[in-house]
Amino acid sequence: MTKKKISAAPSVRRLPSYLHVIKQIEKEGSEYISGTVIAGELNLEPIQVRKDLAITGITGKPKKGYPAKALITSIERFLGWDEVQEAVLVGVGNLGSALMGYPELRSHGLKVVAAFDVNPEKIGSFVHGVQVYPVDNMDSTIKSLAVKLALLTVPNAEAQKSADILVRAGITAVWNFTKVKLKVPDEVIVEKEDISSGYAILRVMQQARKNEKSE
Amino acid sequence: MTKKKISAAPSVRRLPSYLHVIKQIEKEGSEYISGTVIAGELNLEPIQVRKDLAITGITGKPKKGYPAKALITSIERFLGWDEVQEAVLVGVGNLGSALMGYPELRSHGLKVVAAFDVNPEKIGSFVHGVQVYPVDNMDSTIKSLAVKLALLTVPNAEAQKSADILVRAGITAVWNFTKVKLKVPDEVIVEKEDISSGYAILRVMQQARKNEKSE
Repeated sequence: MTKKKISAAPSVRRLPSYLHVIKQIEKEGSEYISGTVIAGELNLEPIQVRKDLAITGITGKPKKGYPAKALITSIERFLGWDEVQEAVLVGVGNLGSALMGYPELRSHGLKVVAAFDVNPEKIGSFVHGVQVYPVDNMDSTIKSLAVKLALLTVPNAEAQKSADILVRAGITAVWNFTKVKLKVPDEVIVEKEDISSGYAILRVMQQARKNEKSE
Repeated sequence: MTKKKISAAPSVRRLPSYLHVIKQIEKEGSEYISGTVIAGELNLEPIQVRKDLAITGITGKPKKGYPAKALITSIERFLGWDEVQEAVLVGVGNLGSALMGYPELRSHGLKVVAAFDVNPEKIGSFVHGVQVYPVDNMDSTIKSLAVKLALLTVPNAEAQKSADILVRAGITAVWNFTKVKLKVPDEVIVEKEDISSGYAILRVMQQARKNEKSE
């Protein structure tokens, strides 16, 4: 099996913000929602919004737009957010703890059922209701839980070693919050989350503004 | 002034991962680094890497590649990561606390100098060495600190209200970790960080794999 890129990746990335806007409008009592209204809320072109929503399998009605409830269901089903997915988390530091307590992820069906750390003071404790286990037993614990998804929030230096154990334990999808480009078998999915990228964009925009003003 | 999009945004987003790889290779003693090696580490096309690096103003030498130290300096200067930028953070919840303790951001020059919260138990305390102030005095505190960047980690329902105060206090750049599309004047830069987008991609990839297997 070879690694496949998702051609619709930018569209998929936009779906969560559509969902948020649609839920808000639906809560205010609207039965139908137009692509133009969603586009206006998010500063996008209406044609872009309609194309993006089409990948979830829904099409709007001329003049009326999309039925709100069906649209929400369509997006959530496409994203798999209508199902609970169990996951483990490796590395109970600041970021790991924050992710376990992040309500957005829970509301999207992501349920962390076990966490792992090397720190003896953390092992055995509960963080946001999730028990922390020793990394030493990670392989057998994950196997007995039969979990397929792992969130990786260890220090960079530990990332590859942790990933190797996860793969051996049967993990097939890793949400990687470290800086390390992980080496994993082709059949394992890795999504790398790089918070620094956002700061890179922000700084470059700030500098562009500064240059505009001084011109 | 109108809002300008950065045409090079995808390139800018990739620069942090280049920087990480280059620093690692440089630490191992290499004086020169080729675009092909960086590309190999990150699963990208060499031509893409060379184009991306060119926006920082550096060009490699045929056969030798880029001088490692100069390349690091060039990227860091382009991103403004060679300078300290002071910031405030609004909303000292799980995510806010994690960001204040996130070593990556500190190493990129981002220094949170004050945090704000509504919770009386948090006000006056220090989180990762940063004092928490009451939101009530946010306007005057930010003005006296003369800070221009704010990290917004409040609940969605509080996001717009907080943004309004930030803008009045002279903030010109907001790193928005909420789900809300903020309404701000054109001259204020907003970078929206949506962690759920990564989970959306991950789920869709998992489902695509499952379908492949069952075909």
